[in-house]
Amino acid sequence: MDRGFAYGDGVFRTLRVQRGVPACWALHYKKLVEDCNVLRIVCPSADLLLADIERLFAPGEDAIAKIIISRGEGERGYAVPVLAQPTRAVIKAPSPQYPEANFNEGVRLHLCNLRLSYQPQFAGIKHLNRLENVMARMEWTDNTITDGLLLDEQGRAIECTMSNIFVRFGKDLVTPDLSLCGVAGITRGRILEAVPQLGLSVKVTDLPLDKLMQADEIVTCNSLYGAWQVIALNRQNWQPQSLAKQLRQILQE
Amino acid sequence: MDRGFAYGDGVFRTLRVQRGVPACWALHYKKLVEDCNVLRIVCPSADLLLADIERLFAPGEDAIAKIIISRGEGERGYAVPVLAQPTRAVIKAPSPQYPEANFNEGVRLHLCNLRLSYQPQFAGIKHLNRLENVMARMEWTDNTITDGLLLDEQGRAIECTMSNIFVRFGKDLVTPDLSLCGVAGITRGRILEAVPQLGLSVKVTDLPLDKLMQADEIVTCNSLYGAWQVIALNRQNWQPQSLAKQLRQILQE
Repeated sequence: MDRGFAYGDGVFRTLRVQRGVPACWALHYKKLVEDCNVLRIVCPSADLLLADIERLFAPGEDAIAKIIISRGEGERGYAVPVLAQPTRAVIKAPSPQYPEANFNEGVRLHLCNLRLSYQPQFAGIKHLNRLENVMARMEWTDNTITDGLLLDEQGRAIECTMSNIFVRFGKDLVTPDLSLCGVAGITRGRILEAVPQLGLSVKVTDLPLDKLMQADEIVTCNSLYGAWQVIALNRQNWQPQSLAKQLRQILQE
Repeated sequence: MDRGFAYGDGVFRTLRVQRGVPACWALHYKKLVEDCNVLRIVCPSADLLLADIERLFAPGEDAIAKIIISRGEGERGYAVPVLAQPTRAVIKAPSPQYPEANFNEGVRLHLCNLRLSYQPQFAGIKHLNRLENVMARMEWTDNTITDGLLLDEQGRAIECTMSNIFVRFGKDLVTPDLSLCGVAGITRGRILEAVPQLGLSVKVTDLPLDKLMQADEIVTCNSLYGAWQVIALNRQNWQPQSLAKQLRQILQE
């Protein structure tokens, strides 16, 4: 009867736990609260969640924590229970073993056929309605493809199935506007703040696919791997460059 | 770890069980299989589900069955498990106690602010990504409002939060096209087949809000209550007429 299962009525976070300590906790918790607010779910306290993590992870352990907050149990029907008691699920998953080449050379992307739909009322939040990501991820089985680039209804690049994107044109960095669709990850936010350190300008704007294909450099990012350069997309290739490595250094500080 | 909870990766049905027997079972099961196919989930057999229902409902019992089929458990990440074992949940809920006036006079609708997004890849199916319905249902608390009318991005009427709609102009019945958004319920399908019995024509097409407001009669429908006439929407009123009652008679046959 949990509304997370019935309707995807909730939000989640995926983060690294390093030596038992959740990385960038303040940013992750802030985003969790903001996302809950959009759905009018009362987010459990940071103390509760940190106690869950402490119970689940050994002090020296490196792994991944996934935190799901749903609206909680309810009667059948869409109407929200007056006294909903949110469900919190904290899950431990092993650290992913990414190929070294993803960091040293870069990654190959699939261009997804599925187009992201516009839902301004809850675009940007990491809610549990993730069928678009699931269906897009089904589009490739080739193990040399790391992620899929998702366009919106109008053919603008938005994000990858598990990552945000940054695109460099000379000294200008661009990341897609996510006010109509997409998930605004905290690593994207950290990069937006860090850009001045790189001697680049940054703009949050529309990014049509044909413009993206002319980029000098494309980088994907998320909380688990930091940043990777894209070296192949849709039969076009890019030489390995330095932006992803620079970003990983900044993100590790 | 169920992907229904993690991603809304599944589908569902809500149906009446009358004297222990699921109503319109063949249609519900057919739709369940079709919806599973769209998500590439192998639907459990009808025999399994009927056995669940038999175990859960007493032979003489009238109630509601909700059937949820999710892709099953999986590791963290959007990639579908190679050997996913679908989860089936069959839930018994009490028969809703609708006011007599809903049948005798009709119902009042709220016009929702939330706009349905376009996702042609899985429009029409009753999947578990139902945040739009949840958020739309939050828009009103007035108990005299029974349901909310949902428009799409372009302002076309699509459906209500828990119902499909039919709109009558003279001898012509119209129901919205659901190829971009909305859920194509089995009661809508039954009405589409039954229209000739009413001496009306029927068209599945676009239905802009301003056109809908000029209708002679508006009817909502679903598997639980059959059909209700709309008597109020957005400060406009309609006199009680006979279409909803005729449809209920046909649906009960």
